[in-house]
Amino acid sequence: MEKREQIYEGKAKKVFASDDADIVIVSYKDDATALDGLKKGIITGKGAINNRMTNNLMRRLEAAGIPTHYVKELNDRETAVKKVTILPLEVIIRNISAGHFASRYGVEEGIVFDEPTIEFSYKNDDLHDPLLNDHHILALKLCTKEELELVKSYAFRINELLKGYMKDIGIDLVDFKLEFGKTPDGQIVLADEISPDTCRLWDSMTHDHLDKDRFRRDLGGAEEAYIEVITRLMEEK
Amino acid sequence: MEKREQIYEGKAKKVFASDDADIVIVSYKDDATALDGLKKGIITGKGAINNRMTNNLMRRLEAAGIPTHYVKELNDRETAVKKVTILPLEVIIRNISAGHFASRYGVEEGIVFDEPTIEFSYKNDDLHDPLLNDHHILALKLCTKEELELVKSYAFRINELLKGYMKDIGIDLVDFKLEFGKTPDGQIVLADEISPDTCRLWDSMTHDHLDKDRFRRDLGGAEEAYIEVITRLMEEK
Repeated sequence: MEKREQIYEGKAKKVFASDDADIVIVSYKDDATALDGLKKGIITGKGAINNRMTNNLMRRLEAAGIPTHYVKELNDRETAVKKVTILPLEVIIRNISAGHFASRYGVEEGIVFDEPTIEFSYKNDDLHDPLLNDHHILALKLCTKEELELVKSYAFRINELLKGYMKDIGIDLVDFKLEFGKTPDGQIVLADEISPDTCRLWDSMTHDHLDKDRFRRDLGGAEEAYIEVITRLMEEK
Repeated sequence: MEKREQIYEGKAKKVFASDDADIVIVSYKDDATALDGLKKGIITGKGAINNRMTNNLMRRLEAAGIPTHYVKELNDRETAVKKVTILPLEVIIRNISAGHFASRYGVEEGIVFDEPTIEFSYKNDDLHDPLLNDHHILALKLCTKEELELVKSYAFRINELLKGYMKDIGIDLVDFKLEFGKTPDGQIVLADEISPDTCRLWDSMTHDHLDKDRFRRDLGGAEEAYIEVITRLMEEK
């Protein structure tokens, strides 16, 4: 696999073309952003950890029947993935109240829901990723009804699987964000990453934050938290 | 029916107790507010028009099988309604893009949707009535799943009926907000009002705004627009 020109740079990742037209190479950065991009910083080692963690989880999800964009880990920070068109939706599953849910609806963090919630944000920086529901998604023609139903069923299934993986390493999966992509032949696959950047992970015993909230909220110890999660995950598998 | 002490004052209506414990008296004001309460004014005659229009439409909806809180028009501005506990949800149906939908999702006004959309806001002034979806409503325990399904089915049915009533008087029903209440015996009924304060109404031929957007957007002619709507409605019935 040969790396070619950079085709995209996001807040936490770069994407490069490869010598295979169906494959792109994702390169994870240490850059961290929060508060709708207003807060910027570095979490040293984050790129390598998020790369390894995402790949570990994507392989397990794929084995459990969830189609993903994962192809092959190339090195510490870089991974070959299927070239997909990303659906312009952030898919957020919540098991426990925290973050925007708690602030938006005026409730405390830590309320365990009877059922997980799903919500969608429209991926659009200019509009600040506004919340939208199924009806809005279809009215805006962001995907088809069949694709939306598939995304929802994958997301809930992924939640059950990830909750189990995290429970095994003493972590409560509070909430997380997924993105899905569409392959040239129209298949919907899990894309993007699954990491402490995109998940809220609380230690099951101490309720310590083992995720990007350490950076967002200036709690300190962000590097250590990311290392703690990847260490538990790699020791377990 | 005897009017007793005032029990509530909202932006556009006051509510009084009556000599019947199951009945309250709604009194419509001419006060107009917009922009989350920041803009305040008066639309002379609005209270009487909204009272008459709401009652006209509630009677027709009731006859078409939608349970409502309507009991009896008392005078120009006052109506007896069933005493209900209002569900803390604003239910918004949209047939055509406009207002918050257009600004939130960065699309122009006037796009006719293939299917109407429904959305819910959490009625909470301190939180600025945030959008929420079915999952959020259930996680926050704002109503039961059965109540939510009933509210949605009533709202879509009301949309079909109102669209028809408006079409008959040369008006396109762009979008509107409903509120529902629960009677002491647990019945879900349509409450609040249906008026140019709570509906976007565009003249079918000219696309003139015949609603509160004339006030919100400083278009002038708010009084005339309200009078135009009630005149067409009363002439037709």
